[in-house]
Amino acid sequence: MSTGRFITVEGIEGVGKTTNLEFIHQQLLSRGLDVVRTREPGGTPLAESIRELLLAPRNEPVAEMAELLLMFAARAQHIEQCIRPALQRGAWVLCDRFTDATYAYQGGGRGLDQSRIAQLETLVQGGLRPDLTILLDLPARQGMARARARSMPDRFEAEAEVFFERVRDSYLQRAAAEPQRFAVIDAAPPLEQVQQAVGQALARLESIDAC
Amino acid sequence: MSTGRFITVEGIEGVGKTTNLEFIHQQLLSRGLDVVRTREPGGTPLAESIRELLLAPRNEPVAEMAELLLMFAARAQHIEQCIRPALQRGAWVLCDRFTDATYAYQGGGRGLDQSRIAQLETLVQGGLRPDLTILLDLPARQGMARARARSMPDRFEAEAEVFFERVRDSYLQRAAAEPQRFAVIDAAPPLEQVQQAVGQALARLESIDAC
Repeated sequence: MSTGRFITVEGIEGVGKTTNLEFIHQQLLSRGLDVVRTREPGGTPLAESIRELLLAPRNEPVAEMAELLLMFAARAQHIEQCIRPALQRGAWVLCDRFTDATYAYQGGGRGLDQSRIAQLETLVQGGLRPDLTILLDLPARQGMARARARSMPDRFEAEAEVFFERVRDSYLQRAAAEPQRFAVIDAAPPLEQVQQAVGQALARLESIDAC
Repeated sequence: MSTGRFITVEGIEGVGKTTNLEFIHQQLLSRGLDVVRTREPGGTPLAESIRELLLAPRNEPVAEMAELLLMFAARAQHIEQCIRPALQRGAWVLCDRFTDATYAYQGGGRGLDQSRIAQLETLVQGGLRPDLTILLDLPARQGMARARARSMPDRFEAEAEVFFERVRDSYLQRAAAEPQRFAVIDAAPPLEQVQQAVGQALARLESIDAC
């Protein structure tokens, strides 16, 4: 039975995830593929409600473990109701953020023990991992400047530059540890150049297919 | 430094938890104790929002692991923002349901692997366990009849009798495994008799204090 491919797009605020997700989506559709485009946290009605809880600015301090468990609760629902069924029917799943974001934000950003994240990853995902993760990379200052020009910050976007620098470092470390899964793409050049690099990363996945 | 005591009240729908929680609360207050009365899932604004997500009837099937992680997310928040600070200042915490309910409902009721619950219990609670758990016990049919006479069922109350019988069995098994922590009280007799038994269970906790 043919199964689909699971592509995730990662990066800090302001790197151009939305624009590039749209580009990838169109690239895959133009090849006649069945594509499910989704996002984390979210992707199902319940998971989107959890997302609202996570992103809403609030006066109450949020316990790190509560935040981490909410992320994985949304993920468990998303996987069971959306990602696995799509992959099983042979669709390609294109997801705006996934577990690498949890390692980067809750691990790298908030300093939560990575082994706790790994424990939950195994509990919730079993062996499910993306086939390709496109990491759009930009120094935190540049990303934040772009994001600020766009809209009011949510609870995560309101963090300081030093936080996003830790998030970025954490993403880059993960990419270095799994070069076969990650494609790190410099998001600073003009969009056309970034999209050329994204296209090459997708081609890499197809060459894996051909093996 | 003196630390408080942590009392939980458990049982299926319709056993009289609310009435008996009120009785215990008044008993503790009448002894001049600083008492924090709370409930699970809930007990903080964020945890109460998670409770709403859990209890709301919904069309979308809820993944068992998502439900379990939401329960523990609410618990992590409740422990950090409410229970631990209260115990640390020497207050007595009186909680309507806690982790035994997760073992009983998600484990016994839904058949989720108990080892997964235990893994999350350790991750979220460390060594925190109740000092006394009062289990109000009633056959599922009787509990459901009482609960139905009261109000419209939420997502849990809408389960079938066989579900609540499994929940009850799971509670009783836990009580049998930890007789020093649990007081199992038959909730069928007239309220006065039930409250006499509850009073005896509280006295047992005080005799532990005196050791």
